[in-house]
Amino acid sequence: MTLKLVIGNKNYSSWSMRPWLALRGCDIAFEEIVIPLYTDDPADKARILSHSPAGKVPILIDGAVTVWDSLAIIEYLAERCPEAGLWPADAAGRAHARSVSAEMHSGFQALRNECPMNLHREIRPVELSADARANIARIEDIWRDCRARYGAGGPFLFGRFSGADAMYAPVVTRFHTFAVPVAADTRAYMATMMAMPAFAAWVKDGLAETWTIDRVENV
Amino acid sequence: MTLKLVIGNKNYSSWSMRPWLALRGCDIAFEEIVIPLYTDDPADKARILSHSPAGKVPILIDGAVTVWDSLAIIEYLAERCPEAGLWPADAAGRAHARSVSAEMHSGFQALRNECPMNLHREIRPVELSADARANIARIEDIWRDCRARYGAGGPFLFGRFSGADAMYAPVVTRFHTFAVPVAADTRAYMATMMAMPAFAAWVKDGLAETWTIDRVENV
Repeated sequence: MTLKLVIGNKNYSSWSMRPWLALRGCDIAFEEIVIPLYTDDPADKARILSHSPAGKVPILIDGAVTVWDSLAIIEYLAERCPEAGLWPADAAGRAHARSVSAEMHSGFQALRNECPMNLHREIRPVELSADARANIARIEDIWRDCRARYGAGGPFLFGRFSGADAMYAPVVTRFHTFAVPVAADTRAYMATMMAMPAFAAWVKDGLAETWTIDRVENV
Repeated sequence: MTLKLVIGNKNYSSWSMRPWLALRGCDIAFEEIVIPLYTDDPADKARILSHSPAGKVPILIDGAVTVWDSLAIIEYLAERCPEAGLWPADAAGRAHARSVSAEMHSGFQALRNECPMNLHREIRPVELSADARANIARIEDIWRDCRARYGAGGPFLFGRFSGADAMYAPVVTRFHTFAVPVAADTRAYMATMMAMPAFAAWVKDGLAETWTIDRVENV
């Protein structure tokens, strides 16, 4: 049974990018179903609801099992495809990866509001609030700390690519597009992520889309 | 090595209630460390930061391992104490439990803002926004759907008590304290939760606290 992932526009849908990158980055085969977000067409909303009563993308469909929400999908894939190594193999690293992933999942609201993911946006800085700057500093600390503790085996947060990298991938695009001033080690990690074939493939697909969402374009 | 859980005020800290209830509800032994939130005393913030650089409760400490964030703690406990059965045993139920838990973890912002957890608040309704009412309707649907699909073995969302019940426990207190009009099956589930000895113990401790947070008291 082929896994199916229902996602939004690749240009804008940061939540969709996370499990898509987890799948592609681990070479797990899947079929994608793209439903444009925030259109005025009620059929698009109805299409999302036909897959999940939460009415939100991303949604993973595995035969009779439906999983929604980016983090729940990554947990599901980590169990279903253990050979992919979506979480670090040791318990302490796994606890750390889950902690930073959950911190991303429920937090950093100021950064998310002020720097929405928008791959085709012209690269230029915006004035950021103190809260957004604090979010950025905390994210730089998280990345630095993960790599110092667990990054010996490779260039990702926990050495090899993991669910935590997938969770932070949209932040990499935000730092890039909004020309956020960050430290050299942060830029090195961003370069690692942007050089992933899966990351580049997502960006390429996003740039090819022609849908636009006005309220995001005005930021 | 005894597990330690660092939490905020029991009267107000909905995020702390979740892993505390998961531990106590599953009879997992632990020691609690209570640090009052939103005091003007910088020593309290420093105490939280001494346990976790995220600077937020709850924090679980297991020897050399530190786990922060309610959902990451529940995942950690589910692995460390498999006999507790924090997630449903079957893969489809587990995927569903993680999906609804993650939906709680990142969502329902209107309800959370308009009905903050405050155990000692006088029970009375407030006028709710359309967004908060939609949150409530979605939560009622989630609880109904979980119990219809997976609740055959007991009165909880997945039959026996699970991490999903722990994630929604603060919502039970909000529906109760803000006298939210809900359906009979929702009230029955709330009664099940409130009758848990662990739930009652948390409420009793919260009511005994004398700290107050003005901005919450005014809601």
